[in-house]
Amino acid sequence: MSERRWNVYLSGEIHSDWRERIQSGVAAAGLPVDLTAPVTIHEDSDDCGVAIFGAEADKFWHDRKGAQLNAMRTQTLIREADLLVVRFGEKYKQWNAAFDAGFAAAIGTPYITLHPEQHDHALKEVDGGANAVARQPEQVVAALAYIINGSMPTGLAQVQAAE
Amino acid sequence: MSERRWNVYLSGEIHSDWRERIQSGVAAAGLPVDLTAPVTIHEDSDDCGVAIFGAEADKFWHDRKGAQLNAMRTQTLIREADLLVVRFGEKYKQWNAAFDAGFAAAIGTPYITLHPEQHDHALKEVDGGANAVARQPEQVVAALAYIINGSMPTGLAQVQAAE
Amino acid sequence: MSERRWNVYLSGEIHSDWRERIQSGVAAAGLPVDLTAPVTIHEDSDDCGVAIFGAEADKFWHDRKGAQLNAMRTQTLIREADLLVVRFGEKYKQWNAAFDAGFAAAIGTPYITLHPEQHDHALKEVDGGANAVARQPEQVVAALAYIINGSMPTGLAQVQAAE
Amino acid sequence: MSERRWNVYLSGEIHSDWRERIQSGVAAAGLPVDLTAPVTIHEDSDDCGVAIFGAEADKFWHDRKGAQLNAMRTQTLIREADLLVVRFGEKYKQWNAAFDAGFAAAIGTPYITLHPEQHDHALKEVDGGANAVARQPEQVVAALAYIINGSMPTGLAQVQAAE
Amino acid sequence: MSERRWNVYLSGEIHSDWRERIQSGVAAAGLPVDLTAPVTIHEDSDDCGVAIFGAEADKFWHDRKGAQLNAMRTQTLIREADLLVVRFGEKYKQWNAAFDAGFAAAIGTPYITLHPEQHDHALKEVDGGANAVARQPEQVVAALAYIINGSMPTGLAQVQAAE
Amino acid sequence: MSERRWNVYLSGEIHSDWRERIQSGVAAAGLPVDLTAPVTIHEDSDDCGVAIFGAEADKFWHDRKGAQLNAMRTQTLIREADLLVVRFGEKYKQWNAAFDAGFAAAIGTPYITLHPEQHDHALKEVDGGANAVARQPEQVVAALAYIINGSMPTGLAQVQAAE
Amino acid sequence: MSERRWNVYLSGEIHSDWRERIQSGVAAAGLPVDLTAPVTIHEDSDDCGVAIFGAEADKFWHDRKGAQLNAMRTQTLIREADLLVVRFGEKYKQWNAAFDAGFAAAIGTPYITLHPEQHDHALKEVDGGANAVARQPEQVVAALAYIINGSMPTGLAQVQAAE
Amino acid sequence: MSERRWNVYLSGEIHSDWRERIQSGVAAAGLPVDLTAPVTIHEDSDDCGVAIFGAEADKFWHDRKGAQLNAMRTQTLIREADLLVVRFGEKYKQWNAAFDAGFAAAIGTPYITLHPEQHDHALKEVDGGANAVARQPEQVVAALAYIINGSMPTGLAQVQAAE
Repeated sequence: MSERRWNVYLSGEIHSDWRERIQSGVAAAGLPVDLTAPVTIHEDSDDCGVAIFGAEADKFWHDRKGAQLNAMRTQTLIREADLLVVRFGEKYKQWNAAFDAGFAAAIGTPYITLHPEQHDHALKEVDGGANAVARQPEQVVAALAYIINGSMPTGLAQVQAAE
Repeated sequence: MSERRWNVYLSGEIHSDWRERIQSGVAAAGLPVDLTAPVTIHEDSDDCGVAIFGAEADKFWHDRKGAQLNAMRTQTLIREADLLVVRFGEKYKQWNAAFDAGFAAAIGTPYITLHPEQHDHALKEVDGGANAVARQPEQVVAALAYIINGSMPTGLAQVQAAE
Repeated sequence: MSERRWNVYLSGEIHSDWRERIQSGVAAAGLPVDLTAPVTIHEDSDDCGVAIFGAEADKFWHDRKGAQLNAMRTQTLIREADLLVVRFGEKYKQWNAAFDAGFAAAIGTPYITLHPEQHDHALKEVDGGANAVARQPEQVVAALAYIINGSMPTGLAQVQAAE
Repeated sequence: MSERRWNVYLSGEIHSDWRERIQSGVAAAGLPVDLTAPVTIHEDSDDCGVAIFGAEADKFWHDRKGAQLNAMRTQTLIREADLLVVRFGEKYKQWNAAFDAGFAAAIGTPYITLHPEQHDHALKEVDGGANAVARQPEQVVAALAYIINGSMPTGLAQVQAAE
Repeated sequence: MSERRWNVYLSGEIHSDWRERIQSGVAAAGLPVDLTAPVTIHEDSDDCGVAIFGAEADKFWHDRKGAQLNAMRTQTLIREADLLVVRFGEKYKQWNAAFDAGFAAAIGTPYITLHPEQHDHALKEVDGGANAVARQPEQVVAALAYIINGSMPTGLAQVQAAE
Repeated sequence: MSERRWNVYLSGEIHSDWRERIQSGVAAAGLPVDLTAPVTIHEDSDDCGVAIFGAEADKFWHDRKGAQLNAMRTQTLIREADLLVVRFGEKYKQWNAAFDAGFAAAIGTPYITLHPEQHDHALKEVDGGANAVARQPEQVVAALAYIINGSMPTGLAQVQAAE
Repeated sequence: MSERRWNVYLSGEIHSDWRERIQSGVAAAGLPVDLTAPVTIHEDSDDCGVAIFGAEADKFWHDRKGAQLNAMRTQTLIREADLLVVRFGEKYKQWNAAFDAGFAAAIGTPYITLHPEQHDHALKEVDGGANAVARQPEQVVAALAYIINGSMPTGLAQVQAAE
Repeated sequence: MSERRWNVYLSGEIHSDWRERIQSGVAAAGLPVDLTAPVTIHEDSDDCGVAIFGAEADKFWHDRKGAQLNAMRTQTLIREADLLVVRFGEKYKQWNAAFDAGFAAAIGTPYITLHPEQHDHALKEVDGGANAVARQPEQVVAALAYIINGSMPTGLAQVQAAE
């Protein structure tokens, strides 16, 4: 009955097109959703701190300056999100994704994890705090459509079959 | 003196037209109220989880998937409501309505219960935390008109007499 | 530098024109202020509960129904106010004004008290938690102009002299 | 590694011996647990308010006085519990148990539900917010032993088989 | 089942023996209650600020220094209380008692008001936020005995009759 | 992906043009930023309290009245900021800037300090809680551009070289 | 000057003896520290849920039951810790350790990470929210000795050299 | 009436004997007070980070490591204090003292400032948030005696005269 917009933060892996698939799915469904995310250009996210605040001889502090600059973006956006999607890809450790999930859990913001089955056991605590575990970005879009409008999915069976 | 909109969440029973009566009453009175609610189509609310995230052999987990998906909608809307109306109908147990009332009490959001007198004793703790106990949806509308505009009711006596 | 609107709740005495004087002062100064207040028609504020939810034989419960209905308005508006003005008039006890001041203090919302000097000693704890003590509504308007725009008062000396 | 005591609140049904079974199980296992609960003598819990603060002609207010007196006990104990057990018995509506579960969920305190399978569907939202669903009080004791000491259950299989 | 101690803050009127009656009642009943209170010697409570931090020419600041020193005691004790008793006597305005009630309401701490019927209407908002309204200190003791031990009152009828 | 506006509070030194440099930098970059600040006219910030609420014989209370009036502006704006910039200039003690930084740290709002290297050691605790330490206002602008849009700096090297 | 005990939660890797080294270091130094941790027997932590609440055909729900049971222990202990140590070992993904770090960050509890340099880049966001990054458990003990007693390390240089 | 102990954190200047004077005053008066403080040995507080976690080539990061290690001590102790005393000495900038005051203000913990009159104007915002401004440590002891026991000062006049 309401026309509220939903604010969804997309945390985690930056090497595949999952954010684009959610974004185009949301657009296609006409959902009133604002998507936010960390900076997803890998080198910028690494080097932003030194580029702005000056070079560091030591890689450890080079990273620190970047991480704390990124945190001003990410924690602000996470704190105001209604919902997080937390993506774990196939290769990388993505500890920051798990960090964001823990952050969300502590402040009572629900999150959906998005990862292949191969990570199920390693992610059991992170999944245990989630409100849903998705395998495909299209499932996230379908969940948003249901959460926001109560719309039940139509063509999703095919998507699931195609996994 | 203010033009703020009021956000009212309608929790509980989904088998009678009480939400529609509040909605049409609010519209008729021209109140600046946004009404929100859980998904009220019973089967969708039961099956949404498996429809989106995949079937479950066990009914317990079928229900769990649905409940946790629904919770992303309901808890977000409850957290941002100014006020809840919590409806207990004549037949069903509606434990989730009582759950929502407890949730609202804990975060300091006021609520009005709406139920027939037959439940008064069984609901005494839930009513004890409420700011009002209504018998008819029209009383809720009258309460909103007073809360928002300070308008005193006019034709309500008849409504009450008709109970 | 900002264009934010300020939300100011006017708590307390309902027998003089202090709210109107603040409202016209705010309007004259063109301040971006939304004023909110309890229902200020005394009988309505007393009888609203029974008028909507049914008569009570016992005056105690008649009052209770009204008080809890009023609280849904007042506590919602107080919680979202940036600032409270808490007025104690010359005659009545206005315990509810002191209650609102304590409520504001507990949630970290600043308040200005507004009362004649004769109450200074009796109100010392309430004033002790206030950010300012005003004698005239025009001082509240001048304070808002300063808080919002940094404007220093011009004709206030006369107002103070006229007390 | 720690010697902390755990505070567990036992909410809900008062017509069977489930609290005693948890208490004797906890004692037998030597667990450092303080169990708290509402007043479980049904008539006292109904009549306490009027017995202390004076009789009421109207049953509705008779109940209200009792409920609000009970709430001073229950909400204080719930707020300081580490963990709740929320029991739904076979017959009664126990809306107050669901209310307590919602209260716990909102303040981030974990809870275990305890109920027969027949209620699984009706309780799916309440179970969806729980960290575990138990069928027998002995499972609650086993869970406490694991949570506190990391002890794995030994003779539980028999208990489960005996259900 | 627990041996917890209960922390009860006694706010308000300092001109009658109500605190002593609660204290002796609690002692007689052997209740595990720690009673706290503001400084109840009127002159000390007025003059403490200037006695310690230096004299003030202006009575307003003399009062302010005392009020803010007292607040370090009272707000610390109120914040850690499980329960408040808020007493309004027959003569004085006791705005600070109403302030404490509002403070308690805002932080979710339950309170019992204690006052003669003559104040019922003027205190309706303060009573509306209370979990009980008592007329005699002995009723407060009986309420504590029930809240803590589940003990129902025995000789209270006489007390009530004697009012 | 979002169009949110960012709210940035500029705390501290009022004797140089650093706020203007941030403001013009933000405007030049077209960033969706609302800048807020304390009243920066030194005499007004000192005298506002007595100008509005009446003169004080004692300079201590003259200052107190001003400080508490200013606090209604500053703490409201700080509480709603996404981010603070806290500036320490070369000469003054600016304890209020450090106070604002501590306030921000306690409520979990990130801040950037802005000060010359000469203060590095004295400010090590304040810097230790910051997400970045800037030397020039242009670095703050570059940080905002990165935080909001992910834009990497272009001409900043020159700015840094020019220090 | 105080005799408080410090509560330290040891999160993360369960395949090396780092917890024992901290524990023996703390004991040797006579520090008033209570160490807490998750259940560190790998199989028990995996199987506890089904062992107590009944077997699951599906590994996904087997894991879920265990994870949610473990969470009742871990989140309770994390919430009451003064400080966390979060350990990332050489081999495993330890997403739950990162989750705990995010949880701690969100509730304002400081944490020390403990990991080899090889993870520095991948952990930069997690380290960015930490108050210290340690390489050896003995450094954690030395940090605790300093935090609690202000004791500066003596023989640590050798430890560091021996890495 | 209670035997609670009071927890008082002593923040700020480390170059004079004010902490010792408070400590001996508290001991002489037999007050149930636990005093806490930062590490007050200047060099240790500067060098603790690098001594434990390894040397830094850059003084900025040397300081950062120390500051963040110190913060684990100070913020834990501040968060659990009932009351802070914040001391500004005659010479140094003590921005960290002002930071602690702001931190306390934000979490609602009262504080007393302790400084000579020469700083009154520069500290007006910090004093504006304080519950008292003391000139001598003995006044702090007298305030604690009053806050805790309601004891009025006896020989303080001489102390004040001797300033």
